[in-house]
Amino acid sequence: MTRPPNLLFIMADQLRADYLGCNGHPTIKTPHIDALARRGVNFTRAYCQAPVCGPSRMSFYTGRYAASHGASYNGVPLRVDERTLGDYLRPLGYRVGLVGKTHMKRDEDGMSRLGIDPDSSRGVLISQCGFEPFERDDGLHPDQLANPDLPYNRYLREQGYTGDNPWQSAANSAEGDNGELLSGWYMRHNHLPARVREEHSETAYTTRRAMDFIEETGDQPWCLHLSYIKPHWPYMAPAPYHEMYGLEDMLPAVRSNAERECPHPVVEAFMSHGESREFSRDEVRERVIPTYMGLITQLDDHLGRLIDFLETRGLRDDTVIVITSDHGDYLGDHWLGEKELFHEPSARIPMIVVDPRREADATRGSRNDQLVEAIDLVPTFVDYAGGDSQALNHVLEGRSLHGLVTRGPADTWRGYAFSEADYAWRPARKELGLAPDEARAFMVTDGRWKYIHYANHTPQLFDLATDPDELEDVAHCDVNRAVRGELEAALNEWFKARRLRTTISNDLVEQRTGTAHKRGILFGVW
Amino acid sequence: MTRPPNLLFIMADQLRADYLGCNGHPTIKTPHIDALARRGVNFTRAYCQAPVCGPSRMSFYTGRYAASHGASYNGVPLRVDERTLGDYLRPLGYRVGLVGKTHMKRDEDGMSRLGIDPDSSRGVLISQCGFEPFERDDGLHPDQLANPDLPYNRYLREQGYTGDNPWQSAANSAEGDNGELLSGWYMRHNHLPARVREEHSETAYTTRRAMDFIEETGDQPWCLHLSYIKPHWPYMAPAPYHEMYGLEDMLPAVRSNAERECPHPVVEAFMSHGESREFSRDEVRERVIPTYMGLITQLDDHLGRLIDFLETRGLRDDTVIVITSDHGDYLGDHWLGEKELFHEPSARIPMIVVDPRREADATRGSRNDQLVEAIDLVPTFVDYAGGDSQALNHVLEGRSLHGLVTRGPADTWRGYAFSEADYAWRPARKELGLAPDEARAFMVTDGRWKYIHYANHTPQLFDLATDPDELEDVAHCDVNRAVRGELEAALNEWFKARRLRTTISNDLVEQRTGTAHKRGILFGVW
Repeated sequence: MTRPPNLLFIMADQLRADYLGCNGHPTIKTPHIDALARRGVNFTRAYCQAPVCGPSRMSFYTGRYAASHGASYNGVPLRVDERTLGDYLRPLGYRVGLVGKTHMKRDEDGMSRLGIDPDSSRGVLISQCGFEPFERDDGLHPDQLANPDLPYNRYLREQGYTGDNPWQSAANSAEGDNGELLSGWYMRHNHLPARVREEHSETAYTTRRAMDFIEETGDQPWCLHLSYIKPHWPYMAPAPYHEMYGLEDMLPAVRSNAERECPHPVVEAFMSHGESREFSRDEVRERVIPTYMGLITQLDDHLGRLIDFLETRGLRDDTVIVITSDHGDYLGDHWLGEKELFHEPSARIPMIVVDPRREADATRGSRNDQLVEAIDLVPTFVDYAGGDSQALNHVLEGRSLHGLVTRGPADTWRGYAFSEADYAWRPARKELGLAPDEARAFMVTDGRWKYIHYANHTPQLFDLATDPDELEDVAHCDVNRAVRGELEAALNEWFKARRLRTTISNDLVEQRTGTAHKRGILFGVW
Repeated sequence: MTRPPNLLFIMADQLRADYLGCNGHPTIKTPHIDALARRGVNFTRAYCQAPVCGPSRMSFYTGRYAASHGASYNGVPLRVDERTLGDYLRPLGYRVGLVGKTHMKRDEDGMSRLGIDPDSSRGVLISQCGFEPFERDDGLHPDQLANPDLPYNRYLREQGYTGDNPWQSAANSAEGDNGELLSGWYMRHNHLPARVREEHSETAYTTRRAMDFIEETGDQPWCLHLSYIKPHWPYMAPAPYHEMYGLEDMLPAVRSNAERECPHPVVEAFMSHGESREFSRDEVRERVIPTYMGLITQLDDHLGRLIDFLETRGLRDDTVIVITSDHGDYLGDHWLGEKELFHEPSARIPMIVVDPRREADATRGSRNDQLVEAIDLVPTFVDYAGGDSQALNHVLEGRSLHGLVTRGPADTWRGYAFSEADYAWRPARKELGLAPDEARAFMVTDGRWKYIHYANHTPQLFDLATDPDELEDVAHCDVNRAVRGELEAALNEWFKARRLRTTISNDLVEQRTGTAHKRGILFGVW
């Protein structure tokens, strides 16, 4: 095969790894994703680098840990000179486009300091973390912040929806008995159908825009980041997905009384957040979770259409597909809502890689339980595109999955996966009396043990082998002293190994070692 | 005083802290620097952030550790969006100029990626780590690399020196009995006078250029980085400084046989370098050290002239003066030449701060033995210039010395100082069989103990109280287990505290904490 494959990089926002049929959910219907898992490799132990949108995505797009790229939370600009996927793929001949969400915040100070016009073509790329914004939509548009010129708002108006912000009034609202708007931001409305027709919904629109990009691009190799806004809140699904699932389809909440009675101080502070208190109530879970599941099935249906489209266009055998998410959703597990901390429902992500070429036949339909990280995708894509990810190991911190997908599990692989939190922006930080730069936490897992280091607080430790639900924190058991020390040491080594000398490659260092004398710089010569 | 003071930031290259009269050297003559110490505060425990030119200077200019700014060795470009002293002082109304050396390597890849023309005024500033290059000269110009258009070369030709590169042939060469050139790069010639006349030497020229800058700038507040190339090698001094000191003026080498018989593996690899083998020979020390001392006294004489100049121009009471160096020079101590490792001759630097204003009268002529780091200067200058260094604590990692200079020793101060090495470029790395990203070492000291963590090797520990000469590595004594653990823990904490979330201030985070709901982003609301 002389032509490198297209790269279809699909992300669903806030999609839990275990809410897929192929990952064991007993009732959810995700036949198209399951079919992709049968065609590819399902990585069952994949972790995001930060269980919150912005930093997780910046890790996906840079191939670097949050501690390295620095955009540690939503709204923290990515440094203007951080390299992203587009910087690597465009020189290899790819069109690198975005349809959907990135949660990128551009570094306006940096651009101004360096004289970069945000509206220039380069400025636009930098502003969109290296993607050509074929369609950018981060999907959170309350009326206070809404832009009537948002393409999706324009589209909805063209379909006859009224108002400045039909994203809110149609796609993310229901209608009451008297025709009044019932906002989807309020979870008490999440069992109602969105006012938007399904074919006009965000997921449907986003899928069509992906098809537009593929069609427009034609023969040039492309990488499309197709980044769905759902099943992230507001949890509003259009009919019929709002009523596809019922209480009998729900998994019970994973939680114990002991967790609430004797919590870790940081977890306790998160438990006191509004979203955690609400999701601890059954009434809330029962309104939200069936809809959350419906949104996933809706997404799956549209992925089915997209795959048919690829097939029709003759692209199926030319296109490597990745399906993942930026983080999960507690949905009341562990008495928590949302994400940010490191339990599996929050930090673990789905990761399915489909390589249609004959080279990958050996792994087709397999599951791989080696530790995978979100940062692995950039080197994977670089290798698929015909580049050499190893030559970028002074910047990229992930490991290419190319070999795992073509040859199967690797004999030597990483021993640990890491994830990070910076909760400076959350009320928990103030409740704990911490300064903005003290509210950090780090997860390290070797696959069996999960260790969480909290700045200014004692650590947590879970044994995933005996306690896969992470109900018992065993950090303080004497018998675990050795494993705790080992994981803390791994974390400390990890910190020392961050790639911060990014402006010169290791290959170049190797070439230059001991060469000063050759350049006439004699020192210590008699 | 309404007008902020001028800032004269003087650096001597490779000047050991203990080679000044005011720091206890028994024979060296540095009367003008000693006089400055009597007018200011002499910080006796100041450390550079990396005992090698490039990374040390990038720390001086960014206010950040090498692990944070990433330019970990000579020739590693400083990331294009790293902020430097000029970025902070120019908005406060300062002209920020350079006369002399920076060892800056510009980030050409980054500039090209971001569309910055290196020849534009912004590109020039970025290329010179934020300084206006009134006169840039890094001072190492072997014929192979020399630029005939170097201003100092042009100057020397105007004075009648011949050839393309009189830096080499006049300023850094002597003359043999038959008129042949004897290159100063060879230490066997270092006892001979340079061919250049003293008034045309680098140190003299650099001082005059500083005067030109000050004169040209006039009434605008200025910060001048006056960065002398000497006493860095080539160790060539013009007459009469080449013969000002004799063998009787030399300090004995600080070294023991035990150090050589049972060395630490990394130190041993450095001992096997040419410069270490040569400096371990008395013949070499006896050729080099008297000249090294002569170069320091020459520098001191020119500083005397410069201070007279300030006085004549009425600037003495308006100018804060700092004298420091980027690192020291082993000169054969510990069987080592050059620098790079962390013994006091290499990692400790002189640091004298003279604040002429009445506010600093209380500390005038005092010594301060609190732990000071090179990165402290940027926040110090920001505060002197009327800025607020605290508001920059998401980027700056140093601490302002302003309070220590005006009020005296601080009650609470840092507990540890750090310094780093990346010796990937040196033969020692290959001898140890390490990859380019494995050759790192970190020093942490609490003032009494000095602990050195080597990646892939056992640590070292010295007790500066009982062994100020650092002749006995006591890392492996059981009795020191606790202190070793404490310093290793301090290093690990330090890694976790690196300022990498540089694009948003802590003040702004504080303002935004818990405000998502106010912006209409409702989550977890029933």
